[in-house]
Amino acid sequence: MVHDTNGSYYAVIFSSQRTAGDNGYSIMAETMEKLAAEQPGFLSVESVRDTSGAGITISYWDSLEAISNWKQNKFHLVAQEKGMQDWYQDYKVKICKVERAYP
Amino acid sequence: MVHDTNGSYYAVIFSSQRTAGDNGYSIMAETMEKLAAEQPGFLSVESVRDTSGAGITISYWDSLEAISNWKQNKFHLVAQEKGMQDWYQDYKVKICKVERAYP
Repeated sequence: MVHDTNGSYYAVIFSSQRTAGDNGYSIMAETMEKLAAEQPGFLSVESVRDTSGAGITISYWDSLEAISNWKQNKFHLVAQEKGMQDWYQDYKVKICKVERAYP
Repeated sequence: MVHDTNGSYYAVIFSSQRTAGDNGYSIMAETMEKLAAEQPGFLSVESVRDTSGAGITISYWDSLEAISNWKQNKFHLVAQEKGMQDWYQDYKVKICKVERAYP
């Protein structure tokens, strides 16, 4: 994984519970993942959702500024609004500094 | 979530890909989750695995010391050994300091 010059990087943990039905979610999720990957400071993403609709997506970024910029991206803001209204029964976000990684 | 007196807490992100078959995995995973929850400094855990066998488990702890103690727990060491040998094709661990959480 590529780091900034400090060697530090950050994780955004997004835990969510989907509502029933797709309602445009899949195409938006795919679009947002591609768009995130184009943003300055993006490092990588990992995402898992189980059959109950519980999901965890973790994106990694090289700075808190990159995370803040992505949060305010105008297309992402539309997706966030729609997510709160229609796609998620519940969600939580945690912003973390990665202290150690192995193996 | 309960924090220590500094208000800081930590996340252990465990990302893994399961091998095929159970091979004793399920009972051990359940046992380890219960045992972890009894450890000093444990706060909570969230875990998702999809039908392809990709999983993310995040446990939250009130200090790095609590994380280190759990990593060295003798029953957990047995599970870690077995996990590396039999249960996981691949896994990664990241230890993170939670900087912000919302909503």
